[in-house]
Amino acid sequence: MRTILRTGALRDLRDLRAPASAPLRSDFRNLRGHTIRCSPAASSSGFHSKSQDYSEALGTAAQIPEADPVPPVAQRERITIADVRERRAKAGRLVAPTASYSDADMFKAPTVGKPKAKRWDHHLAKESTLREPCKLKQAAKHLKQPGLISLGGGLPCPEYFPISSLTLHIPRPPHFSEAATLAPDGGEHPEYDLSTALNYGQANGSAQLTRFATEHTELVHGPIPYADWRVCLTVGSTAALEQTLRMLCECSSNRQDSLLTEEFSFSTALETAGPLRVGVVGVPMDEQGLLPGEMERVLAAWDPRERGGRRKPHVLYTVPSGQNPTGATQGVGRRREVYEVARRHDLFIVEDEPYYYLQMPLSGGDDVEGFLEGLIPSYLSMDVDGRVLRMDSFSKVVVPGSRLGWVTASEQIIERFIRHAEVANQGPSGFSQVILHKLLDERWGHEGYLLWLMNLRMEYAKRRDVMVAACSEFLPREVVSWSTPQAGMFHWLKVNDELHPHASTKSILEIEDEIFNSCIAKGVLVARGSWFRSEQDKPPSGLYFRATFAAATPEKMREAIRRLGEAIRESYRI
Amino acid sequence: MRTILRTGALRDLRDLRAPASAPLRSDFRNLRGHTIRCSPAASSSGFHSKSQDYSEALGTAAQIPEADPVPPVAQRERITIADVRERRAKAGRLVAPTASYSDADMFKAPTVGKPKAKRWDHHLAKESTLREPCKLKQAAKHLKQPGLISLGGGLPCPEYFPISSLTLHIPRPPHFSEAATLAPDGGEHPEYDLSTALNYGQANGSAQLTRFATEHTELVHGPIPYADWRVCLTVGSTAALEQTLRMLCECSSNRQDSLLTEEFSFSTALETAGPLRVGVVGVPMDEQGLLPGEMERVLAAWDPRERGGRRKPHVLYTVPSGQNPTGATQGVGRRREVYEVARRHDLFIVEDEPYYYLQMPLSGGDDVEGFLEGLIPSYLSMDVDGRVLRMDSFSKVVVPGSRLGWVTASEQIIERFIRHAEVANQGPSGFSQVILHKLLDERWGHEGYLLWLMNLRMEYAKRRDVMVAACSEFLPREVVSWSTPQAGMFHWLKVNDELHPHASTKSILEIEDEIFNSCIAKGVLVARGSWFRSEQDKPPSGLYFRATFAAATPEKMREAIRRLGEAIRESYRI
Repeated sequence: MRTILRTGALRDLRDLRAPASAPLRSDFRNLRGHTIRCSPAASSSGFHSKSQDYSEALGTAAQIPEADPVPPVAQRERITIADVRERRAKAGRLVAPTASYSDADMFKAPTVGKPKAKRWDHHLAKESTLREPCKLKQAAKHLKQPGLISLGGGLPCPEYFPISSLTLHIPRPPHFSEAATLAPDGGEHPEYDLSTALNYGQANGSAQLTRFATEHTELVHGPIPYADWRVCLTVGSTAALEQTLRMLCECSSNRQDSLLTEEFSFSTALETAGPLRVGVVGVPMDEQGLLPGEMERVLAAWDPRERGGRRKPHVLYTVPSGQNPTGATQGVGRRREVYEVARRHDLFIVEDEPYYYLQMPLSGGDDVEGFLEGLIPSYLSMDVDGRVLRMDSFSKVVVPGSRLGWVTASEQIIERFIRHAEVANQGPSGFSQVILHKLLDERWGHEGYLLWLMNLRMEYAKRRDVMVAACSEFLPREVVSWSTPQAGMFHWLKVNDELHPHASTKSILEIEDEIFNSCIAKGVLVARGSWFRSEQDKPPSGLYFRATFAAATPEKMREAIRRLGEAIRESYRI
Repeated sequence: MRTILRTGALRDLRDLRAPASAPLRSDFRNLRGHTIRCSPAASSSGFHSKSQDYSEALGTAAQIPEADPVPPVAQRERITIADVRERRAKAGRLVAPTASYSDADMFKAPTVGKPKAKRWDHHLAKESTLREPCKLKQAAKHLKQPGLISLGGGLPCPEYFPISSLTLHIPRPPHFSEAATLAPDGGEHPEYDLSTALNYGQANGSAQLTRFATEHTELVHGPIPYADWRVCLTVGSTAALEQTLRMLCECSSNRQDSLLTEEFSFSTALETAGPLRVGVVGVPMDEQGLLPGEMERVLAAWDPRERGGRRKPHVLYTVPSGQNPTGATQGVGRRREVYEVARRHDLFIVEDEPYYYLQMPLSGGDDVEGFLEGLIPSYLSMDVDGRVLRMDSFSKVVVPGSRLGWVTASEQIIERFIRHAEVANQGPSGFSQVILHKLLDERWGHEGYLLWLMNLRMEYAKRRDVMVAACSEFLPREVVSWSTPQAGMFHWLKVNDELHPHASTKSILEIEDEIFNSCIAKGVLVARGSWFRSEQDKPPSGLYFRATFAAATPEKMREAIRRLGEAIRESYRI
């Protein structure tokens, strides 16, 4: 299978003044209009009817249509692929040329009757409140005037782009429906071409991929309980977290903010908070991750005077599925309890879900509907207040090198997030965007992508099983214990430090160091549990190692676990 | 012409345990080694001889080889394409698999006898000094141990990447040497393949593109006066500026920092500094941009008590060529004077050069050597102290959608910059990197890319000429004046506000508003000069408009300037 992307506009500019023999693309200027045009059918359907005003979108928040002739989906009813297909058919072909502004409201189901999200002004950091829309992008509101010639923005001519087309070769994965991979191509007039993708764009990403992310979010998490949710494409969740922390936390003279997170947390997240001088507070966990009672305890008892003047935490950062490093997955009941604690203490929740689709109970049958039904509900899906910012990423389920993901949150939060993206990165690579659009939208479609995800979690489940079996075979059960991970890429091994022959004279970190070095000597690299400790200044609560089943072959995984077992046995004199 | 990128590793994983019929890539783990291996010839040449240690590179700074058997290039002698070709031939094939660490020292000419850059500890912001290397990436130092199996990092399997190859179609531009575009392809064993490019990488970018950027920097700016310069790939210069400001400036209780820049400056740069609460001080300009005498005056007379407690500026942000918005280009003498002021007042210089190759005196003849000789020397090329961070971008000269550029500065500065990139973006898109590598390195080579740039500046010079001719024809010279831009994409028009019939009753901003709105009504969008004022709280120094010649066709440009002329005449009653 192959799909071809073309620049619409590559021309020979040998003689800039010769009109006919080397024709210039006379309508090139029109490429830079910014309005998402919809078919008349779409206009009458209501959710595409609003002519988006650039300045409004960039300045103040855009409005949701007041009323809609299409009957809204019932409050708790799932949105189906058929719904999305019907909506697209009504909306007609998406016209979104260079640097078009777009937002989720243009693509999502009507939200009539739902409340708007709460406002979070009291949680925003000063830096975030000071951000202003990009002046040059605001001026683009004038571009929709018919006949206007722009000498405004310094966008280079696509005639000078040295790539005329790109062809993707897409393999047919196992268990993958042929029909899904043969969705109709964009043909001669694709909805997203290279001359658009490779020029400057909006910091929140292209309309084309925004549409896909919006619809996908609805299919998986919808209907979302509040009305004014939006999405913003990101350059990946690492960047999204940095932007989010700077939006919500600060350590100025007025505020000494802290972040609540799992007792063991993703080390890069901790390295992000550190230089911002945001305090990190670790919440004790069990095999389902965060313990709501412990959260409650920390928050209810918070006294700034005992915490070096730090304010009570107002942000929770959590990885609910296949948590990194512990592999813990919060069940639906656990999530509801955590959400209630967040409501009680006015916490904003940052839901980081790179491993969400790698849930491995493998329940719910073989079809897409069953797959979606079987996924544990996200915080986003239960968020009645708009207090969740969810981070999604293509890194673990498509390719990490795309440096592409998206966030979903309330209009207010997304608007501030975009203002930051305008100066922090200007949005994701156009190459990444157009390639993922071709793959996910034009080639696979929503069903095809979901089939891909279903297949992928099967593959990771097989790998997980290889690793857990190897642990049972090679690790000394008298000192090593674990839960079988229900999602993700990581297996978390607890080693009983109290049973170590030198427990009375050596610290946990010293024992960890001894085993880690012995592992290296024997030819296996595992991650040390202490790297992930949220509060590095506290004594460690136990001895842990993290092993990934994502990367090594089954044969090598078995051998690696055998070596790890040997290292532990030697240290424990077993 | 087409060039094909393949994933080395896509395999059917239908049965994870079946060894033969569906073969797993048994050596996949080895893909994750991190050492840049070189041929024996390279080892003996010295500049590839050092085995790079991951932890060393990520933790403390890597060392430059102490001595080198290859005679160093003489202190002020230009490095040629032949030098680079010879160096590559000696070094042998670059082996840099998934997430390999690299730095410019691996690829640049020996720097024996040159001094190291000065240290800038006193200029770094607290946030930057607190950054620590990524723990998980540090652990990768163990990967070079033979036979080691990693269960360490959560890198997904390339077997699960759903893109098996990519084909680029590259048009043959006018005036472009056929030979240059037919450089040998990577063939069956390319130096950079999709399975590497699309997995996680280092935040400073791939070794393959780092090599190209390093060599290109040497060809254009070399030899750089100090020894320990480095490069870091970026997600574009917008991001690079944000990272740089956060590295060098802060507004904490201890420091109230300010930034020196042109009186009229790139509005996005101003919007970056604003929320960081970094003060901006505008330096008066002439047609060559920054006036060194004015810089000296501001700095020598600086009194924090008269400046709301702000510290004397220690950072200069400048766009030396085709400045945005004024189009001003600093000549070599001007640059030397500015650099001397910077030395005298201990200023760090941020040199932002997206338009550097769009210099239009068109001197220096038709060949690559002449082109390079004719370019105005950069601050980087005259930087004896290592006080310059230069920002380069592919946006204006290849495609903006690549979201890719690079910075060049001293080892200390680049190391801090990389620490920030690890949490702010994790480096550029792998799609962008591998596509630019194929285009610039494998297809074109250095000579081909320089020919491309030579051609491009010719095209922009023609466009500039169309615009200047239209201004001469249609604008009222009695009130509008300009200098012909010598670089870039922008034409800056000064309108004499004192001659306006309502000069005594209307403010400059009111007259600007009137003309701008009249332009929109007549169907032309230009940028208002006031958008670019560095110090928005001061009264404007004059009435200006910026017009770009990058985007519209020649016919439309003429018509647009005619409309602008009409708007000005009407406002001035001419």
